[in-house]
Amino acid sequence: MKKLINRPEDVVLESLQGAAHAHSDLVRVNFDPHYMVRADAPISGKVALVSGGGSGHEPMHGGFVGMGMLDAACPGEVFTSPTPDQMLEATKAVDGGAGVVHIVKNYTGDILNFEMAADLAKEESIQVEAVVIDDDVAVKDSLYTAGRRGVGTTVLAEKICGAAAEQGRSLKDVADICRTVNSSGRTMGMALTSCIVPSAGEPTFQLGDDEMEIGIGIHGEPGRERSALAPSKEVVERLAEPIVSDLPFERGDEVLAFVNSMGGTPLIELYVIYNDLVRYLEGKGLKIARNLIGPYITSLEMAGCSITLLKLDDDLTSLWDAPVKTPGLRWGV
Amino acid sequence: MKKLINRPEDVVLESLQGAAHAHSDLVRVNFDPHYMVRADAPISGKVALVSGGGSGHEPMHGGFVGMGMLDAACPGEVFTSPTPDQMLEATKAVDGGAGVVHIVKNYTGDILNFEMAADLAKEESIQVEAVVIDDDVAVKDSLYTAGRRGVGTTVLAEKICGAAAEQGRSLKDVADICRTVNSSGRTMGMALTSCIVPSAGEPTFQLGDDEMEIGIGIHGEPGRERSALAPSKEVVERLAEPIVSDLPFERGDEVLAFVNSMGGTPLIELYVIYNDLVRYLEGKGLKIARNLIGPYITSLEMAGCSITLLKLDDDLTSLWDAPVKTPGLRWGV
Repeated sequence: MKKLINRPEDVVLESLQGAAHAHSDLVRVNFDPHYMVRADAPISGKVALVSGGGSGHEPMHGGFVGMGMLDAACPGEVFTSPTPDQMLEATKAVDGGAGVVHIVKNYTGDILNFEMAADLAKEESIQVEAVVIDDDVAVKDSLYTAGRRGVGTTVLAEKICGAAAEQGRSLKDVADICRTVNSSGRTMGMALTSCIVPSAGEPTFQLGDDEMEIGIGIHGEPGRERSALAPSKEVVERLAEPIVSDLPFERGDEVLAFVNSMGGTPLIELYVIYNDLVRYLEGKGLKIARNLIGPYITSLEMAGCSITLLKLDDDLTSLWDAPVKTPGLRWGV
Repeated sequence: MKKLINRPEDVVLESLQGAAHAHSDLVRVNFDPHYMVRADAPISGKVALVSGGGSGHEPMHGGFVGMGMLDAACPGEVFTSPTPDQMLEATKAVDGGAGVVHIVKNYTGDILNFEMAADLAKEESIQVEAVVIDDDVAVKDSLYTAGRRGVGTTVLAEKICGAAAEQGRSLKDVADICRTVNSSGRTMGMALTSCIVPSAGEPTFQLGDDEMEIGIGIHGEPGRERSALAPSKEVVERLAEPIVSDLPFERGDEVLAFVNSMGGTPLIELYVIYNDLVRYLEGKGLKIARNLIGPYITSLEMAGCSITLLKLDDDLTSLWDAPVKTPGLRWGV
């Protein structure tokens, strides 16, 4: 295992300590239980957004805490759900009296623990609305999942709902926007290599030198198929076709196109992928109105990419464009 | 070779096409010769900044074209100098009458070609000042290099000088600031794995499963030594000690600490490294006043990191903080 770490069991803790040192102007980190809140939390009268999940997907979620995005993030151990205790304490730390939206990726552990945290928060008179993200079109059920997995659309939901909350919209409105984003977003990913979970010390799965996995999950869960390596053009078609036909996206739709690195794939390749995606979507009559290209929801050092398409309307576009100031995503301020 | 590309010989072209599609609000891309300029170039009366070099280090340099940073970038083939023709055309495209600074990393091909381009530009009555970046403390000479290599400080120089040019400072002043940044910045890198140049199809060098290379160059040039894998704490010491003792940085200095991924190392590990760097520098009495953490000057998919320290003064800090709006670095606007 080749990683720049100290003891495998300390990776999450030390990475959080590093983030606390680096970004004290934007976030505060609480240890035991671990959670990160924006430096100015709680904000009286503003709906608060809390997300979280296993670590190993950085910058998601901790890198998205700050003005215009999340109020708090709860990091579990690598690829392991955070505990209800983390979620409850984070919820209490950011509640400004207007209620809290939990943005939950559809993995069984996350769902159960966020439900328990929401119940406990309600006992303390905090209003909570949970929204589940399940945008991965690759497989219907998966390891750790009943129904579709929650993947790339989560990043877009956190940005868009964060902007809505910043504008003073109500708990119900922010939660409804989150549901709209989820129902308008679709993702599919692929891997060229496995990642290695630090505590395991070995690749999560094996792929031959001439193989790729299409439809991979962000924890290395099996996708649709293994096949021979293919050129970018073909990879794009095999990811984008199931996305476009699933929603379905239709001729004339405006979309946000998100090309994401799984961690080990460099930017030069993401732009090759994006270039092929532009041509593919032009052929389908879809217009890319916004884009996001880079490593935003990763799987440690896995090489590969995912494509997310989000169908836009004027409100979603305007919320996407609104200022954001987090360690991992920043513009307009 | 596992890469998300089409034909190896088309990687740079298609990646530029992708960037042109993605960032048409910020940049314009010229093909044949290849160069990228900010969308509003040339800006009358403003000193223009041009950089460039081999591709494979993205987001540097093309990702740093935009308001508050570079006016133009010239991408060569992967790890290959751009041609004088590219540099000349880019220089002419961005000259606003106040002169052009060429920011040149110290590699023999880059130096020769930028010199030739500067001579040709002067024949067309464009004032050019070239500043060479040679901040890598690992080795004195190297493959492709007489003297030290130019690495991480280049990113910081492009940001800081871009801000100075934006403020309307003169050609001489902007070039002098660039020289100050170069003389105040020091870098050292390391690799856990090699990268694969697309046209070569094979790793640039071989490293054993239990080995790392300390002092690696950004093209995989040999560093100081190969040694057994070591924990982050020890890696940080072995990178930071030669940096601190070289300038030398002294107790009480304020620094910008830049922890960079070589491409394949994920963010979670960079924050572990940063955490260890904070402790190391505290022990030396240095104060981290600013930081930058992420993949900014990469070597394709190489796993590894580099550390750059830049000694700050009030002017450099204020120029660092100034607004920037590029595909790869953005804040304040």
